[in-house]
Order: sequence, then structure tokens, then C-alpha cells
Amino acid sequence: MKDIIRVQREKLETFCTEIFIRLGLPSHEARDSAEILVAADARGIASHGVARMWRYENGIRKGIMAGGIQPTVLRETPISRVLDAEGAMGMGISKRTMQWAIDTAKESGVAFASIRNSNHYGIAGYYTEMAAREDMIGICMTNTAALGVPTFGRAAMFGTNPLAFSVPANDGKMFTLDMATTVVTRGKVEVFSRDGKELPDGWAVDTTGRVTGNAHKLLNDMLYQRGGGIMPLGGDGELFGGHKGFGLATMVDILTAVASGGEFGKSVMDSEATSARVCHFFGAIRLDLFREPSEFKADMDRMLNELTSATPAEGAERIYYAGLKEHEAEAQSTREGVPLKSNVVESLREIGARLDLTFPD
Amino acid sequence: MKDIIRVQREKLETFCTEIFIRLGLPSHEARDSAEILVAADARGIASHGVARMWRYENGIRKGIMAGGIQPTVLRETPISRVLDAEGAMGMGISKRTMQWAIDTAKESGVAFASIRNSNHYGIAGYYTEMAAREDMIGICMTNTAALGVPTFGRAAMFGTNPLAFSVPANDGKMFTLDMATTVVTRGKVEVFSRDGKELPDGWAVDTTGRVTGNAHKLLNDMLYQRGGGIMPLGGDGELFGGHKGFGLATMVDILTAVASGGEFGKSVMDSEATSARVCHFFGAIRLDLFREPSEFKADMDRMLNELTSATPAEGAERIYYAGLKEHEAEAQSTREGVPLKSNVVESLREIGARLDLTFPD
Repeated sequence: MKDIIRVQREKLETFCTEIFIRLGLPSHEARDSAEILVAADARGIASHGVARMWRYENGIRKGIMAGGIQPTVLRETPISRVLDAEGAMGMGISKRTMQWAIDTAKESGVAFASIRNSNHYGIAGYYTEMAAREDMIGICMTNTAALGVPTFGRAAMFGTNPLAFSVPANDGKMFTLDMATTVVTRGKVEVFSRDGKELPDGWAVDTTGRVTGNAHKLLNDMLYQRGGGIMPLGGDGELFGGHKGFGLATMVDILTAVASGGEFGKSVMDSEATSARVCHFFGAIRLDLFREPSEFKADMDRMLNELTSATPAEGAERIYYAGLKEHEAEAQSTREGVPLKSNVVESLREIGARLDLTFPD
Repeated sequence: MKDIIRVQREKLETFCTEIFIRLGLPSHEARDSAEILVAADARGIASHGVARMWRYENGIRKGIMAGGIQPTVLRETPISRVLDAEGAMGMGISKRTMQWAIDTAKESGVAFASIRNSNHYGIAGYYTEMAAREDMIGICMTNTAALGVPTFGRAAMFGTNPLAFSVPANDGKMFTLDMATTVVTRGKVEVFSRDGKELPDGWAVDTTGRVTGNAHKLLNDMLYQRGGGIMPLGGDGELFGGHKGFGLATMVDILTAVASGGEFGKSVMDSEATSARVCHFFGAIRLDLFREPSEFKADMDRMLNELTSATPAEGAERIYYAGLKEHEAEAQSTREGVPLKSNVVESLREIGARLDLTFPD
């Protein structure tokens, strides 16, 4: 696609770091935030990457999101920590908290943390892979602004509420599940709306709770909180297991928000005055609680090989375990540059211009 | 339905306990196994209840499943335990292991266990609720005989791989998610086959990996391992998130089987000579790692109330959070008797007759 421009990864990270520094973030937090955003683009998850930079610029300038915040410790035990992020940028505090969990698990075998009053933190899989690289199982979840409708409901009562889970294999390979617990995210509905296409049956319901294909009307109804929204994984009703996706979304709300005393469910909302104050959950569990890491990872190799070497369906080329597509995309991005849409590059140029920074070419 | 007979819970438990005792199980294991089976029926999950008694009778008589087994401890740390069940009945060893996790978490805040070479253990939610009653988060998973087809695949590479998760609210209420990670279980496909009905699109694929509605042929192809099988939660391909269900099923295989060094994926198979030797995972995490349990549970009340009091879709009566239907069914069963289909009662009478036991009336 000629609409895609590849930018050298390190240059893009440095450019984004500089943006954050000039917006007032401490340099280490600026670097972490930039690296996490660029990692999303490198893996082909453009919705969570530097395309969001204008939101951060806006949030920081308005004082809705803040850098350099020292979170309040609400509770601390030898294996757990609960923090109030006080409206901090999500990436920096999340990376530091996952690092705390990893360091703690090195001593104790396991550690958990919940954070309230935070902001969007990029891709959940970034944090779980930090743990996997240290021979640990990594777990990460976040709640998000409400847009998901419960099974048999008609209005949004939870977010896309992603959960991520990483386990290492050998040679840097790993299994990384990083999934919204809704059937799709708002971004996918927006694409259908722009293209004037009908939504597939089972993605969304209207204000009466009936399945709708009208993406444009759905987005408007959601914007003005008239009802309707996106279905949980499994779709409408119980026939395809929509109640299971609803249960998973609730589980994420519990571990992130109930566990930290933060906002959950329909109360998580963006507004003119503030961003949705979201809550996160982090966990690190050492492999050697169960087996010698070398044995654990050898069996992970065997499992992942069995899955990728199975015969694909007629017309399909390959079977992908969770994370494989993203890891292949990331390897290509590191070699050939991070793929950005031309309109995203344009937006970055404009942000750069406002801050007296030149986009790398 | 006049096909349903309600049997007083305690009498049914005692009858099933006696069956297990006469089949040679130690009395405490017989009692645990009976209670767990009857709990499934009491909650309306008949597929996992006493309808399976003939399988246990068969398995014990053939020596495929064994009672009174002392499992081998493969690994032990202050917060974890890995066991080889040596082909034990699933229920007794699972209940004891979850109790160990709870007792350990009382000291350490958290505990995990994985078990290999076990057998079917009933409903996962039974074990997670043991933890929830002690102000803990309960987690439980098991792998099962392979019947699930990976996204873009054409043959079974994982089981229904259920995961369960319980968190307590006040007054004995709790959130209990207990879900197969496939879109449906084999039992549902069997019902469609018996009724001569077409399967809904997105439940299953045939031996070429294409969506199939032919339940009868599917069951035959699966039986003779010719390929085809049931889709992960999210259905066929990626349009409705089937790759997410596939990822969840893999996660369950990792925590149960890779973590314990047991069988995973397509190797988990029933045969003439033996049952599928399945693996389990148990976790207990104290609520007070995060908040005072009273505060945690007060917010759980608020969350569950918000969900059940939201306006339902047009034509729907209520919104159910995970576990609510089962808890209401259980309360009714405790009051009015446990509902059993007449053919299940007949089968129990026959088993009883072989063991010189009279079914309670």
C-alpha cells in the first residue's frame, strides 16, 4: 500500500520522546511512553500507536493527563501493591509497576498490582512480555470507557476491557494473548461507518437492544449516550456464547477497578472536562513455581510448533497462535521501519511543528 | 416439564456417596465426589452432574479411574504445588487441592496448583466458589479431550478447556464465571444431532475446515478422528473474534498441562484402554492483597446491582451476571429438590440395582 510510510524505529522513538519531553514529561517517562506507543505500530496495532499522539498532546496541554506524577500507595503487602495514579499518563506508571511486579516476583515468586485513576496505557501485551522475558507468566488488564452492552442489555455497561497473558518459549519466542473482551473495538466500527458498510450481525445492538448493522447511527447513539453499543466476545444473546464475553469483561472490571477502588462499568466515561480515568491490573508469576523454566519452555516450543504445523483449512494459509502475527510484524518493522499511515505521519509533522521538532525522514 | 423429577438434595448426595463407596472409594472421597456431581445438577448444569455416573462406574470398574490415590508431589514451594494424580478420580483430588490452596493463601496471600494425569472433575465453578467463601478470588481451569479447532485449522487441537473465576459479594452472593472456551461443548452438538437440526453457522467446521451445519456427520468425523470439530468462542475465522477464543483455550492448556508437564492439545484423547488424562489448575488470591474485604465486597454488590438493574433489551426479561442463573437454580433445587431427567433417574436406578442400593423416592 503506497499510503504506508515506513519510519526507522529508533528515529521514530526519539522523535516521540522529544515530543513528550517538550510537553513537559520527565525524560525517562517520555522515553517509556514513546517506546510503548511505537511498539504498537511496530506490531501492526496502529489503533494503539502514535496515531494517538494528538490525544496525548491535547490531554497534557489541558492538564487532563499528567507526567511526572508520584502515585499514592493505597495498600502494600510483600506481594501486592495498589496505587492511585492521580490522573497520570498510563504508559510510564504502568511500565514501572510491571517492573515492580517482576522484581518482587523474583523474591516472592509472584506479585500483583492494581492501579486506579490512570489513563490509556497503550498495548497490554507490552507489559506481559516484560514478565515473559524474565521467565515469568505475565498478566495485564485494563478497563476502558464504557461501550460494551451486556447480554440481553441495551446500553453500554463496560469497556473493551482487554486482557493480556504472555508465556515464554525458547529463542525469544512467546505466546502473547492480547484481546479486547468485546467482539470488536470502537475503531473497527468507525472503519465500517467511514466506508458506509453494514456491520456484521452480532457486532452491535441499537438503543432497543436489537442487533444493528447501522454503524453511523450506532456511533452517534453511543456518543450522545442514547444507548446501544458493542457486543461482548461471542456476540448477541447466548447462542454463540456472548454471555461468556460479558463475563470476561466483568472479570477485567473486577481485577482492575473493584480491586483498586476505582471507577467501573458505565461510570468510566470520557467527558469535556476529563479523560476516562481507567484502572489497570498487573501480575507476574515465576515459571519455576511449577517447573524448571527450561522444561516449561521446551514444552511451550512443542505446543507452539504443533499449532503452527497443523494442516490449515482449505483456502487458509497458516494457523497463528496468539502473538505470532504481531511478532512477525515487529521483526519486519525493526528491519524495514515502522509502518505509519500517511495521515498519521502528517499529524505527527504538525505536532512536531508546534513544538519546533522535525519529523525524521 | 413432566420429564423432570426433583429429588431431595441430601438424599441424592447420600445415594451417590453410597454408589462410590460400594465401587471402592474411601468414604470422604466418595462424599466429595457425590456432592460435586449433585452441585452441577442443582445449578442446572446437568451435563456435568449425575448423568455421568455410569462413566464413573465404568471407569472405576475398568481401573481407568481410581479412588484413594495418593498423588505424587512433583514440585512444591511455599505458594505452589504441582501434582501427578496418577489417574485419580478428578473430584476428590481437586477439592483437596483447592482446599490446600485456600489454606496456603491464608498464610501467604496467594497459592497456585497444577495437576496432571487426572480425570473429569465436574464443574470448575465448584472449586472457585470454595475460595470465594473465604474472601478470596478463586481461579480454576482444566483441559479436556481435544475437540476444538484452531482459527484457520481443520482438526481438533484443544479441548473445551473451561476456565472459572469467582469473587465474593456480600450475603453469600458472588460473581462466578465458569465457561468453556469453545463456542459450545460437544453435548450441545449432540442435542442438535438427535433432533436432526442444522447447527448454527459458526459452531463447527468439517474435515476441510469449512463451516458445517451437519451435526451427525461432524460427530462421526470427530469420533473417527477424520478432522473437523467445534470452533473456539468467537466462531469461525477472525471476524467475530474466534482467534480470541483460540487464545483463551491455549492459555488454559498452558496453565494446566504445560505447567504440570501433562498432556496438552491433540494428545488429550479418550481411548478404549484409558480415559483422557486431563490436567487442572487452581488458584486462590486473598481479597485483602488489594483492599479491605468489606470494601471489596461492597463494591462487588454495587457492580452486580448495576448490572442486574440495567434496562434489558426489548423482548428480554433480565440481565444476568455470570453465576446468577446457576445460583437461583441452586436455591430452588435446595428448596424443591434437584431436577433430574427421567432417563438419568432410570440410569441411577440401574447402577443402584447393580450395587444393591435403592434410589431414594
